[in-house]
Order: sequence, then structure tokens, then C-alpha cells
Amino acid sequence: MRFMDRDFLLDTHTAQKLYHTYAEAQPIFDYHNHLSPKNIAEHRRFHDLTELWLEGDHYKWRAMRANGVEEKYITGDTTPYEKFAAWAGVMPKLVGCPLYHWTHLELQRYFGIDEPLTPDSAKRIWDQTRDMVRGEGFDAVSLLKKAEVRVLCTTDDPADTLEWHKKIAVDDSIPFRVCPSFRPDRYLAEPEGAAAKALCEKYGTDDLNAALEKALDYFAENGCLVSDHGFSAFPYRENAGFSALLRSLGKAYAQRGVVMQLHLGPIRNVSPRLFGLIGADAGGDSVGLTTNPYDLAAFLGDLERENALPRTILYNLNPADNRMLATMAADFAPTVQFGAAWWLNDHLRGIEAQLQELMETGALGASVGMLTDSRSFTSFVRHEYFRRILCRVLGRIVENGLYPADAEALGMIVSNVCYCNAERFFQSKPLLD
Amino acid sequence: MRFMDRDFLLDTHTAQKLYHTYAEAQPIFDYHNHLSPKNIAEHRRFHDLTELWLEGDHYKWRAMRANGVEEKYITGDTTPYEKFAAWAGVMPKLVGCPLYHWTHLELQRYFGIDEPLTPDSAKRIWDQTRDMVRGEGFDAVSLLKKAEVRVLCTTDDPADTLEWHKKIAVDDSIPFRVCPSFRPDRYLAEPEGAAAKALCEKYGTDDLNAALEKALDYFAENGCLVSDHGFSAFPYRENAGFSALLRSLGKAYAQRGVVMQLHLGPIRNVSPRLFGLIGADAGGDSVGLTTNPYDLAAFLGDLERENALPRTILYNLNPADNRMLATMAADFAPTVQFGAAWWLNDHLRGIEAQLQELMETGALGASVGMLTDSRSFTSFVRHEYFRRILCRVLGRIVENGLYPADAEALGMIVSNVCYCNAERFFQSKPLLD
Amino acid sequence: MRFMDRDFLLDTHTAQKLYHTYAEAQPIFDYHNHLSPKNIAEHRRFHDLTELWLEGDHYKWRAMRANGVEEKYITGDTTPYEKFAAWAGVMPKLVGCPLYHWTHLELQRYFGIDEPLTPDSAKRIWDQTRDMVRGEGFDAVSLLKKAEVRVLCTTDDPADTLEWHKKIAVDDSIPFRVCPSFRPDRYLAEPEGAAAKALCEKYGTDDLNAALEKALDYFAENGCLVSDHGFSAFPYRENAGFSALLRSLGKAYAQRGVVMQLHLGPIRNVSPRLFGLIGADAGGDSVGLTTNPYDLAAFLGDLERENALPRTILYNLNPADNRMLATMAADFAPTVQFGAAWWLNDHLRGIEAQLQELMETGALGASVGMLTDSRSFTSFVRHEYFRRILCRVLGRIVENGLYPADAEALGMIVSNVCYCNAERFFQSKPLLD
Repeated sequence: MRFMDRDFLLDTHTAQKLYHTYAEAQPIFDYHNHLSPKNIAEHRRFHDLTELWLEGDHYKWRAMRANGVEEKYITGDTTPYEKFAAWAGVMPKLVGCPLYHWTHLELQRYFGIDEPLTPDSAKRIWDQTRDMVRGEGFDAVSLLKKAEVRVLCTTDDPADTLEWHKKIAVDDSIPFRVCPSFRPDRYLAEPEGAAAKALCEKYGTDDLNAALEKALDYFAENGCLVSDHGFSAFPYRENAGFSALLRSLGKAYAQRGVVMQLHLGPIRNVSPRLFGLIGADAGGDSVGLTTNPYDLAAFLGDLERENALPRTILYNLNPADNRMLATMAADFAPTVQFGAAWWLNDHLRGIEAQLQELMETGALGASVGMLTDSRSFTSFVRHEYFRRILCRVLGRIVENGLYPADAEALGMIVSNVCYCNAERFFQSKPLLD
Repeated sequence: MRFMDRDFLLDTHTAQKLYHTYAEAQPIFDYHNHLSPKNIAEHRRFHDLTELWLEGDHYKWRAMRANGVEEKYITGDTTPYEKFAAWAGVMPKLVGCPLYHWTHLELQRYFGIDEPLTPDSAKRIWDQTRDMVRGEGFDAVSLLKKAEVRVLCTTDDPADTLEWHKKIAVDDSIPFRVCPSFRPDRYLAEPEGAAAKALCEKYGTDDLNAALEKALDYFAENGCLVSDHGFSAFPYRENAGFSALLRSLGKAYAQRGVVMQLHLGPIRNVSPRLFGLIGADAGGDSVGLTTNPYDLAAFLGDLERENALPRTILYNLNPADNRMLATMAADFAPTVQFGAAWWLNDHLRGIEAQLQELMETGALGASVGMLTDSRSFTSFVRHEYFRRILCRVLGRIVENGLYPADAEALGMIVSNVCYCNAERFFQSKPLLD
Repeated sequence: MRFMDRDFLLDTHTAQKLYHTYAEAQPIFDYHNHLSPKNIAEHRRFHDLTELWLEGDHYKWRAMRANGVEEKYITGDTTPYEKFAAWAGVMPKLVGCPLYHWTHLELQRYFGIDEPLTPDSAKRIWDQTRDMVRGEGFDAVSLLKKAEVRVLCTTDDPADTLEWHKKIAVDDSIPFRVCPSFRPDRYLAEPEGAAAKALCEKYGTDDLNAALEKALDYFAENGCLVSDHGFSAFPYRENAGFSALLRSLGKAYAQRGVVMQLHLGPIRNVSPRLFGLIGADAGGDSVGLTTNPYDLAAFLGDLERENALPRTILYNLNPADNRMLATMAADFAPTVQFGAAWWLNDHLRGIEAQLQELMETGALGASVGMLTDSRSFTSFVRHEYFRRILCRVLGRIVENGLYPADAEALGMIVSNVCYCNAERFFQSKPLLD
């Protein structure tokens, strides 16, 4: 097969047909990302590929460091072109790395550039893209429109005023919804901390639970569809304060029809040197502990017992937990889902593994599919990457005689996983009232 | 390749040759299942596919729930045909799920039906199979004969009278052996519980050890070849009472030549709603904790030190334990085996992974192969599924140049793994006397 | 493809080209093995294949036991030919086992024998090799020269006099370097033990830290490039004495530019019977616990905080830790590397998995590649095995359209991983002074 052509990753006729007929044209429901609503509201423009690609993308930083690039060319005080050239210099070494594919998908889809990025092509591609980036169609809103985005769920602090979301909501030139997501991590981590106190004060209560519920009501009024929790450890059975607060939030989500996301198992800021130099989100995080299934089961079960289990998505960072999380989600299906391959797992092998788990538990057909989890306005090619892999996996199954060549049944699955299931799962009405 | 034809899963000529020459015609030694001996003794007949397939099969229930089928069509108060139709409605969504393959293998092998089960074909298949099910050849004994079963090991409580096993033993129209298996889980879980007290009383002793040994003697007299233990956790080094009882049982197995099975790591009844509604075995279980290798090593080592390690099979539910269990079994080979892909792992990928572990430790040639672990009288196609995957794996190795095209050597491995090794492993005489 | 021919494992044209152009002719930098420096210094000769292959090779012993060979033919009192014949008898059962491939690569490369070893060919191969083994070119030094070894790092006790390394260094007929490696495991395990006391006495101090540093200086003067630590458990945060000693050693390595290897997670001497019969390294070890990422992160982070993190390689025995270790190494890249598939993982699937982790984190291009970890003078074919798998993986990526057919870029990666990266990583100058 030719390098990343029209049938990239589609190694059977069935895969090609499924992708081009059912997946390619689907719009995007990106229910989890870290885009800046301010940038959207302001229709932010970018100066060049360095600003678009390398500012704040700690995935790329990691890969540069792994290949011995000096920090000054990564996060330091060098020119945008020097940084871009450093990135181009690393590219040929990234064989088998998802960054390699994402970068080239972005060059192809947004810039129409098909040649590989290498030290040789760096200057040419820089020049070719610079004028495009600064011209029409490359502001934040246009980039999202180009990707056929219909719904975006950003990640926001419960204390957020949501002013940018409000601006976006009344901006007629923005044809997609931008919904805030409720991420109360720091309140759970420090229920007596300054942020918790400030939130209580804002809502005129001295009960953090009550303050969070009010904040959630405010979010819900402003279109919030989903909450998000990240846990390096999940000590549900040992830490009574933590578990009470979490249970109370879970119940609040169920009452309001807000989906609950649990992101389990990273270990953050592993390198103290990087943390000292750059702070959090510097590319110094890694896969952490596996999650204790008894804690997770106790939490979900406690909510279910009170008829207050919200629609939930479970994500694990340690792939050793794949089967555990996939089967536990199935215990509570269709309310609970096993989520897309997350972060350090969102590569070809990781995505195939997640799809296998879904298929083996019979849950693929109801899956809400992919999300970008990104800060970048061009990262929406990750949906394409996922969709191609989905069709690849299905195509192989058919052409190996493991499923009939039933284009209609498979097309339904593909359409649903690419878009329709997300629309159903996130936008349905409250379970309780 | 065509959908599930004669060469289903056999994607090389070598695989086809190995399967059709050495595997296909082998009889079945099913050393672990949950069939009802009463049903066998009574030559139970069935009304329709719903009774045969959907009553009590929590694998299928899970898959239906994952696809949003209402509980009334799963375990509720609807007609048999409505339930069957609900199952047929889900089928096309089960791409990549082993249930999809098992279902079609059962339709092909028992009913001669080659067309896929879909909402469209549901009524036709229902009608076509209804008369067959009620006619000759579809009672419990006939179904087992058709599968070429030679030995069946059911799963039984130590307090069982074994009356049905005795009836079967003297029924000349049953041409296979049905052996009780000794499963003392609830006595280990509650050594002071009512069941333990009753067993002690039955055998006129106040020592649970002694009562269990007498029960085991009674089982052995009635053909018992294998015991079975299931552990969600395995706290061998922490719980002295538990470990003493377990060690004592292990020794008793070794003395009587009874194989010991350890099933490690499920977490059961995760969903309290399902457990409340339906009880145990409702499809609300999942993969649980990994097993601590020091506990397992201490147990096996303690028995070995006393020259009392019985032939043993280790099964894990958490696939993160695959390499640990496979290599630990190899430490005690050939007395200890790494068992077949269990329960939530018994799909194409899980079976291939178990075979890889066996091959990588050099233990494939001595493996006792597959078991059904099922309550269903048509689930014996799982042996066929396993055998096809075994031949598939071997065929690829040969056709990739990784092993010579030595049909005799490979045929010997296939024959042994499919049937002969089990006969040797389970039926050999006591190690001690 | 034909059985183990010139293109063994190279299943694409790209793989063939990469291997034969860039990998095949590379010399070997074997930075971790258990060869006897005495045997090298004495240019040891061997009597026959049994002495060369079966003495002390507990990998092969395991495989023989797994297939029911009696212990007397493995480690007992039988003739060399009887042992060889027992090994040959097992060979055909080792389909899918790396021992099968290593054995045949050794027959091909050292003896020019292409036919498979089977019970039928055993006598013929025994006769054919016997005279060769005893003739020219089969002493320890010649075998290593034939493999194009440039640097060898043995594994040595800090109390070692290094007399054999010194003899080798002045032996002009030995054209490669043989460097001692510093393995202080028993001093960390028993800081108050007899070995620790003796080392302190030797160096005239009562401080174990100081004694180890002096021993390390002595090793460094004699060419030591790398240290080695093996941990069944890694209780860094709980055991203050252990962690202080380890941190102090880590700092000492950094100051001297000595690479630190951490081998994490075996469980040793699992079978008390084997341990009683044969002692350690008898083939009774298995995959053990996963490593707690917080302990590992704390150790590496503590060293980094003091600017004293040596170049480090992390190896895990439990493959459930693959992603954790690979991503944590990336947090500290390029100082820390995720090491080659170790011991019970060094087979086709295990090596592919390690390469995938490297590629997915963008770290393949800087990897130091393979090592033998062996006591055998013919085990250097494991480098060939690894290199073929490396080219196989890259070839598939290219021919699947996932990377351009850029022979130069890929050739550079291959050359670097096969040899050049190791030379750079192990021989660079101290980080501190």
C-alpha cells in the first residue's frame, strides 16, 4: 500500500467500502477535549505551524526529548522556525508512533500537503503553510467547521463563569455547540482547600456538596452534558470523605442527566526536573497504577443501589486494566461504557485493543466512539484515525470469514459508533427528576 | 474467505490440513462444565431454541443488555419467541464476539442451518428448529453423543448424594462417562457455616477437614477425577485457617489422584440491581484482581515440599496474569498446567493468547486443551472453536517459515491437545498411596 | 516461506532489504550477559553440544520438564549423548518457542547445519558437530569473534578481583573488550550480612556505602560501563535503609558515567523441589509482581532532583508493566530507556511488544537494542533474532503504507538500534564530575 493515501489503514476492500461509505462523511461529536473556549469565542488566529502545533502539545515534546532534542528547541527561547525544524528533524525517527500519523493527516487535511515532513522538506512546508495559516479558513472556528464538528465538550472548572461559552452560544457565525464540562478534581482532592472555600462563598453555603451542586446546575443551564474526573488512585473503600463526596456528585449527575467520565490511573509530573522547569502537563506523566476492581465496583454499585447511577464512561491509562474495565462496564450496560483508548494508549495498537474489548463483550454497537482529548484545533484528525482503524478491524473480520459481508449491518454499526451513539448517549434526558 | 464455511478460522493450507486430518474427528473429554447431571440422567428434552439457548445463559444476557434490550425480553415474563427474536435482533451487532460464532456453529452442527441469524431470518429459523428440537436426537444424551463426548466432569457440591451420577452410570443407553467434580468453595468460604456443619454431621465428625476428605472419598468412589476451586482473592499467606484447609485439601487430592483446578480472579455480582433482580450468575460478574504470585507460589510450594502437590490446572480471569500463571505452571511442570482461556477470555484473541503462552514456555505439547465451562448441551462447539484456533495458530507458524512442514509432529501435538493429553492427565493413578 | 531460510522472519521485501543491508553486518555490543570471564580468559574449549548447550541452560531444562522428560536426562547422571538425545526428543514439541529458533540458528550459524533437530536427526547431528566442537574455531574466544562481538559486559560481584578481566585486557589474541558489570544485589539485600562485612573489611571502612563506592571505582578503572540490580520487589518508599543505599549507588553511577540497569519483578526458586535438588537458576523461576509506579518514580525523581540520575535501563519481567515502564522511561528520556524484552519475555511476541512500546512513545530511534542475558557462548544468535524481528516490524509498517519507503531513514534507525546507540549510551563520559 502507498504511504498514507486515500486508503490509509484500510487494508481490505470491506474496510475501504465501510470507511468511504459510512464513516468518512459523519460529523463529529467531540465529547472530551481541552480546547480553550476563549480561543473559540475570539476566533483565534495563529501565526504559523509552531504556534498551531508545538505550543502546549506535550505529546510532541516527549517525542522530541526521547530523541535527544535540547529543551531550548522544545519549550525554550528559540525562534518558531527553529522549533519547527527540530520537530521536523525528529519526524523520520517516529516510525510506528501516532504522532507521525496525526502530523501527516493534519498536513493532508488542512493544508493539502501530501509529502512527508522531514529535515529536507521542513523549510518548504514551513513556507507553504505560513501564508495559509495566517489567511482565511485557519482561525479556530474555521478549523472546527472544516472538521464538521457539531458538538464540542470543553473541560472546565466548576468555578468558571462560562462567559466564553455564553459568548459562543450567541455568536451566529459559530455553527456548532460548545458545551462546558464539569471537572471538579481539585475540590475532591482538597475539600478544605482555598478553591473549595471560594466556591462555597460564591454560592453562599458552607457545604461543598451544596456548592458543587449549584455549580453543576449553572453548568447544566449552560449546556453541560458531561462531567470529568481524573484519579491517580481511587481509594473508594478507604477514604470515607472522598467516597461520600464522589457518591453525592454521581447522584447529582444522574439527576441532571449529565454523563460521568472517570479517567483512572495516570501518574503525573513524574520528572521533578520537568515539573520545576515547565510545570504540569509538560510531557512528564506516565501510566500509573491499575485500579482496584472492588473499589470501582463499590462506587458504581452504591450509586446503582440508590437508582442514581448516571450514564458513565470508564477510561483506564494502564492497559493491564482493559479487560477488567471492559467487563465491569458490561455489568452495568448500557448505562456504563468502556471508553476509548486514552492518552498514552491512543495509537493503532491501543485503539485496536479497545475495539477488541468492546467486540468481545458485545458492546461495540453501542459505543460512543472517539474523542480528541486535545488542546489543538487541528487534532480532529484523530477521529479520522479512529474511524479508519474501526473500519480496518471490521474489514478484516469480514474478509476472514468471521462475519457475513453484510454492508448494511456493518454500516449501521460504523455510523452509530462514529457519531449517532454519542448524540444519543450525551443528549438524552435526565434519568431521574 | 467465505462466512464460517468448512474452513472457518483455518486461514492457511496447513491449518486446514491439521484440522481436518487430526482435530475434527477427535472425541471430547470435557473436564470442566456446569451441566446438570439430573438433565442427563433424565434424558431431558427441550421445547425450543429459547429453552435450549437462552435459559440460564448469562453470556447471552450480557450481550443483550449491552445492546439496550429491555430486561423483560431477557429474563422477564415474555414468550419464548419474543425472547428468541430479541436475541436475533442483537446478533448482527455482535461482530467480533464469540457468542456470534458459537451461535452459528450450533446452528450449523446441530440443525444444519448455514444462514446467519438476523432479525430477518429469526422467524424462519425458529420454525425450522422448533420441530427438530422436539424430535429425535435433541434430548440431552443425544446432543452429547452427537458431539462425540467420551467423558464429562460436572461441578458438584461435596454434600451431593451423586444420585444422578449413579443413575447415569447404570444407564446402558448413555455411552459416555459423567464424573462428579468436587467443588468445596462454600466450605472454605465459611468453615463455621451451616453447610460446613451439615457436612460434618453427615459424616459424623466435628472436623471439617475430615468431613471433606470423607466426601472426597465418596466422590472418588463415584468416579471423581477433578476438583474445582474458585477464588476472587487468594490470601494464602495472610489467612492461616484458609491456607491450612486448602493445603489439607490439596494433599487429599494428591493422595487420591484427583486433579486440582484453581480458578483465580473473578469479581462476582458487581451489579446490585441485577443481583437483586435475578441472583447470582446473572451476567453481572467481571474480571477482578490479579493474583499475588507469592501467595500462589507459597501454596504450590508448600504442597510440593510435602510431596503432596496434586496435578493442578491454573486458570486466571484477569489476562494481566497470563504470563505469571503460565511461567509459574512451568516451574512445576508437568504436574501443573496453565489452563485454557477462561470465561470472559474464551474468545479468539483470548484463546490465541493462551496458546501463545503455552508455546512460549514450551508447554503446548502437554496441554490438556479445552473445556466448555457451560450449562448448555449444545456448547460443545466450543471445542471445535478451540481446535480450529489451535490449527490456525500452528498453520501460521509453519507457513511463516517458523517451523518445518512436519505434518506428523504437528498432528501428534494436535491430537494430544484435543483429546489424548486430557485422558492421560485426568485418568492416571494416584501419585501417593 | 521456507523453514528458517535466509529470510527467516523477514516477511516483506522491505524487511529483507533492511535486514540484509543494515542489520546483518553490524557488530555486537552485548551490554548484559552472564558469560564467565574465566572461560574467555582461558579460551575454554568444549567437548560436545551437551556441554555447549545443556550445561547450565535452565531455559532448555524447563522446556524438557514441561514435556515430561525425567530429571536424570536433564541435570542427572546420564551420558552427554543421552542428554542431547532427550533434548532432540523434545524439539519437535517446541513449536512457537524461542528455544526452537535459537537452537536452529545456532546449528545454522556455527555448524552450517540446516536440517531440523529431531529424534531422527539427533545422532547424525551429534556426530557431525562433535568433531567440529573439539576442533579449531569453537573455543570461547573464537565463538565470540565469529559473532562479531566488539564489547561484552559480564555480570560481577563488587568483591570480585576482576583478575580474569585483567588477563583478557592484556591478551592480544582477544580482539574485543570484556567489561565487568557491577551487581551489588546481595549487599542491598543484606547490608549487615557477611558479604557486606567482608567488602567493608577489604576496603578498610565500616560504611557499606563507602565500600561499594570504592569497589565501583575499582570496577570503573577496569572498564566497567554498567551496573545491574535485580529486584523481586521494589519497596522504595517503605524501606528507608534500602532506599538510601540505592540512592547513594545511583548517584555514584551518575558521577562515574556508569549506566544503571534495573531488572524488576521475577519471583525466584518457586519450586522448592527443584531448588533443593539443583539450587538457584534451575529453571524454577517465574514472572512475579508488577512494580509500583510510585516507588519507581520516587527513586528516579529523587536522583534527578539531585542532578544525579545516571543513564538507566528499566526491564520488567511482568509484561503487564510494559506500558508503565515504557512511558516512565519516556518521562526521563533520553537518560532513561525502556529495556529489551527480558528473560521469560524474549520471544517473538515479547520482542514485538517491546518494539511497539518503543515506537508508540517515539523512543525506538534512541534504543540501545538487544542483549543476550545468557551464559552460553553461542547465544549471540539472539541478536540476530532480535534484528530480524526489528526489520520485520518496520517492514510491515512500510508495506502497510504507515511510513514512507525511505530506506535511508529506516536504515539509520536499524543501524543505530543494532549497534551504534549502545556504543553512545554506554561509553559516553560522566554526567557530573
